Amino acid sequence: MAATDWPVSVDSRPDTLGVLGGMGPLATVDLLSKLIAVTPAKQDPDHIPVIVSSEPHIPRRVAAFLDPEKNDAPAAAIRARRDRLIDAGARCLVMPCNTAHYWYDELTADCPVPFIHIVHATADELVRRGLSSGTLGLLGTEATLAGKLFETPLVERGYRCIAADDAVMREFARPGIDMVKQNRIADAEPLLRRAVDAMLDQGADAVVLGCTEIPAGLPMQDPWARKHCVDPTEALAQAAYAWACDVRAAEGL
Amino acid sequence: MAATDWPVSVDSRPDTLGVLGGMGPLATVDLLSKLIAVTPAKQDPDHIPVIVSSEPHIPRRVAAFLDPEKNDAPAAAIRARRDRLIDAGARCLVMPCNTAHYWYDELTADCPVPFIHIVHATADELVRRGLSSGTLGLLGTEATLAGKLFETPLVERGYRCIAADDAVMREFARPGIDMVKQNRIADAEPLLRRAVDAMLDQGADAVVLGCTEIPAGLPMQDPWARKHCVDPTEALAQAAYAWACDVRAAEGL
Repeated sequence: MAATDWPVSVDSRPDTLGVLGGMGPLATVDLLSKLIAVTPAKQDPDHIPVIVSSEPHIPRRVAAFLDPEKNDAPAAAIRARRDRLIDAGARCLVMPCNTAHYWYDELTADCPVPFIHIVHATADELVRRGLSSGTLGLLGTEATLAGKLFETPLVERGYRCIAADDAVMREFARPGIDMVKQNRIADAEPLLRRAVDAMLDQGADAVVLGCTEIPAGLPMQDPWARKHCVDPTEALAQAAYAWACDVRAAEGL
Repeated sequence: MAATDWPVSVDSRPDTLGVLGGMGPLATVDLLSKLIAVTPAKQDPDHIPVIVSSEPHIPRRVAAFLDPEKNDAPAAAIRARRDRLIDAGARCLVMPCNTAHYWYDELTADCPVPFIHIVHATADELVRRGLSSGTLGLLGTEATLAGKLFETPLVERGYRCIAADDAVMREFARPGIDMVKQNRIADAEPLLRRAVDAMLDQGADAVVLGCTEIPAGLPMQDPWARKHCVDPTEALAQAAYAWACDVRAAEGL
């Protein structure tokens, strides 16, 4: 379908969420699970309608950020999926991949529907959690950390940030992320816990899990995780649910 | 998008799966999780591309089957989502809702892509499990059981079938299914276990979990479940993965 089909289809419910996923697939499933978990529902129609593109062939985000000369940028492929989701009825977009948010401006430049930014959702979640100041440990991909995707806006909001160092990335975070992409959760979990613990040892009051594979690989219902971790995927689910509630209220649904 | 846009879009990968979901939403997430679990993947692009419509406002399937005079049939709403998925690039369809398969003929009559039937996938899984004869307990919705969705084809294949009786449905299966639709897994699990145990007590060699909420509410990795239960959702994931492998082999992907 071509992007010339704007405006968005009129036969979809106005609370239909679009998910630009597959980066990776398990992180997308994690977002969908968390959207269900944050939705109080007595029966099927209480849930939010969702259209998902889980496309694991989007060009690699970390490689494109770190070495743009040698690697395709993902923005064109993501825009193509964005347009399909809108044509299929999505009225708001989310993208459960932190690194892909480097191309957020390109993805939203001519976007006819709202597109919730994962970092903004996370900043709102921090405030909801009572964490309106203090020191945050930052985990993520090498690209998320090098490009300060979370660090710049969080420092602007008055937080002190400690980004994971090379040793934490090499020994715990990177192998943990790769294992989640291979669906090896049991292997990934102890490594990801050690990455969080390393950030706490370095003085973090809480740790932002700034790569969607990380909360997908940790048992986020566990009291340890709920106490020490901030989950951008759950924050995105909360923000999407709040958007849908606003639409339902405005439209009398 | 109108169904007049056939043939399917040429810019999607030929191994793109479409999921007609939201009946209910957690069962859809369960299918997506199981598709990931059955896919051997070293990195994102090894996974299968998927487009999902999770639409919880499809008219109620059980009510439509049991009292078609008073309730809207779901087929038109499902067909509309089917067409959107195909327009968005889906090259094969699955529907993680057993009851909705009553309308399978209507849904596939003019469908330009393959549409894997959940009961056929389950029958294949039985054979793969070495269960090519014997007695099967059948759990499901009131509609699935009354309409013999599994019973008729399984009896044709030579199985003896015992469908859940009213007491099992009323005390265990129906409240368990409803709790899964409310995301109350911890409450649902003991009820669903008792439903399975009741069928084993009645002489079943294995129990077919013929409503997608049931395996979504049971820990299917548990040795007890793997020994006694047959999971149509996992069977559907296996069949979808096999379809994608065939396409990849044929297209040299």
